Amino acid sequence: MGIEDTNRREMLIGMGAGLVALKTGTASAQADPARKLGYAIVGLGSYATRQIMPQFANCKHSRLVALVSGTPEKLARYGAEYGIPARNRYSYASFDTIRDNPEIDIVYVVLPNSLHAEYVVRAAQAGKHVMCEKPMATSVAEARTMIGACRKAKRLLMIGYRSRFEPYNRLAIELARSGHVGPTRIITAEHGFDAKPGQWRLDRPLSGGGSLMDIGIYSLNAARYLAGEEPVQVSAIESTDRTDPRFRTVEDRIDFMLRFPSGVIANCVSSYSSNHNGYRVIGTKGYIDMEPATPYEGQRMMIRKDGQTTPRVLASTGPNQFVGQLDHLSECVKTGRTPIVPGEEGLADMRVIEAIYRAAREGRTVTLDAA
Amino acid sequence: MGIEDTNRREMLIGMGAGLVALKTGTASAQADPARKLGYAIVGLGSYATRQIMPQFANCKHSRLVALVSGTPEKLARYGAEYGIPARNRYSYASFDTIRDNPEIDIVYVVLPNSLHAEYVVRAAQAGKHVMCEKPMATSVAEARTMIGACRKAKRLLMIGYRSRFEPYNRLAIELARSGHVGPTRIITAEHGFDAKPGQWRLDRPLSGGGSLMDIGIYSLNAARYLAGEEPVQVSAIESTDRTDPRFRTVEDRIDFMLRFPSGVIANCVSSYSSNHNGYRVIGTKGYIDMEPATPYEGQRMMIRKDGQTTPRVLASTGPNQFVGQLDHLSECVKTGRTPIVPGEEGLADMRVIEAIYRAAREGRTVTLDAA
Repeated sequence: MGIEDTNRREMLIGMGAGLVALKTGTASAQADPARKLGYAIVGLGSYATRQIMPQFANCKHSRLVALVSGTPEKLARYGAEYGIPARNRYSYASFDTIRDNPEIDIVYVVLPNSLHAEYVVRAAQAGKHVMCEKPMATSVAEARTMIGACRKAKRLLMIGYRSRFEPYNRLAIELARSGHVGPTRIITAEHGFDAKPGQWRLDRPLSGGGSLMDIGIYSLNAARYLAGEEPVQVSAIESTDRTDPRFRTVEDRIDFMLRFPSGVIANCVSSYSSNHNGYRVIGTKGYIDMEPATPYEGQRMMIRKDGQTTPRVLASTGPNQFVGQLDHLSECVKTGRTPIVPGEEGLADMRVIEAIYRAAREGRTVTLDAA
Repeated sequence: MGIEDTNRREMLIGMGAGLVALKTGTASAQADPARKLGYAIVGLGSYATRQIMPQFANCKHSRLVALVSGTPEKLARYGAEYGIPARNRYSYASFDTIRDNPEIDIVYVVLPNSLHAEYVVRAAQAGKHVMCEKPMATSVAEARTMIGACRKAKRLLMIGYRSRFEPYNRLAIELARSGHVGPTRIITAEHGFDAKPGQWRLDRPLSGGGSLMDIGIYSLNAARYLAGEEPVQVSAIESTDRTDPRFRTVEDRIDFMLRFPSGVIANCVSSYSSNHNGYRVIGTKGYIDMEPATPYEGQRMMIRKDGQTTPRVLASTGPNQFVGQLDHLSECVKTGRTPIVPGEEGLADMRVIEAIYRAAREGRTVTLDAA
């Protein structure tokens, strides 16, 4: 089974029950399949400017056409760097006038978490398709509002789960689900970094939460995409030193376990005070190790099978995860397909995130209905 | 700080509040410090015959002098192999007459778990010091009875936690507790193997439980010895396919999380349907990996620090873990010291094991009093 097959299968899995295929292609997009769709980037922080914006140069179906920022100096600096004309530079006050700009097909929201919902809804109401960074929102309720707004506007919504476009993660999904090391029994995943003080991510009104929202979500999302099903039991333990000035309003460590309908258990780590990034899919015949698993680059896969541990190296990896992600949404807009990581995928994570926080807070195993 | 220093510190840590230094040396043991103390092995299963008995040849302070088994053929075979005279071969019926045998200083109980309590108590009542395999017992109540019986008889009780005598595990403890990779934030530990049908370990009346009692206890014990403190919160999720004939009476997978008073969280895996053996101590500056961590031999340590991952290889490892364990109890008997893994250490694990089962069964985080 090739990655393309996996892709199609994942896409089907990704399509939630309530999701209908939308006729979403704009007239201009459908008229010329070779046309690169125009992205507006909302929020010019370091992730947008250092990771995403440089990647448009490598895209086949996407180009950077507009910038949105509250800081005029940033608009001037990045506008000049990327050749964005003044008419395509927006403030948050003028943001809604993007509806009058046919060059913009897709709005990519890269704002602090608590602003995602507002800008996704406004983008959809302006008639644009939307890419939204993870975590999709700060609550299930917000996520539902965002999905509803995009559906009402007949516009696509995709969440920035870049690992789903990263070749080694795609291979891991394929190997895990095809039973390469036997049926999966246990998944372990750990993600953490040493949070630097003074960032919006440590300010609950902006972030909506601590390490879980920001980095632990990679452990959660990986557990879900590697298992290929939705958890039905969630247990969690939090550990935060509230005397650490970084953790006045958000949690540091919150580890959690998920039980899936097939019986797979995932043991997951989330930390704002230690550096690690990896997961392991343990089957009856061995395991698949990815470490690091979800960085911007440098993934490494090792496979333990038949008593031997060997590296697995892809001969050709194709476009990187950032390019893959940007072009995937453009292609979906052109073809009317549903993204493999639609709003429903972000909602699924938010649903478990709320359960993790509740499990930790109430000291009990939270049961979720089968999704 | 050398391993010897660690040893002394661990010994102090290992000495519970209620534990008093006992004058335990037998007259003969104290009379001649060069004398090798005599062990009787109770239960001639594969662990006893393949792993433990061959190691006496390498011991400085211990020798094999007696065998106890319900199978006359085993007594004959191993008696001949190890030169054990007929007078030192016992059945379970004649076991209590060991009290009249001055060659036997120590009884090593290697029976199925549910028989540990009975034979430890009978050994103590026969005036012998006792080594007991892990898990110490099938309940906290049994463990307390065993400790009480040995204390009353003024005999030492040690649990067969061989990893505490394994050089890489001792180094890991030293590195973790001395902050080699910064203060510990998170510990992960995973232990499992694919249980073969038809063994006593799968029969609850003999084993007292499933993977947790047998192999998951290595994850638990490692979390405790690496953290150097006792957990105060326990959460757990079990996953067992009851249609698998192996798991009619015992659990397959039971994963658990522990929260320690310092804030360290341990994420632990226990499995009877997947093969893995490792732990990781994650500090603020990196992590210490041990994989495999607790096999009979072949431990491998990797250290991640300052952005680099490097193997750590001991130039000289001294006696192996089996020899170290056997001779440690002999030396303790000679000197009146308390073993670094006394009955109280086994009780501490049993206490958490009961909490893990309760947490899984009741779907709640169980709080333990600070030990």
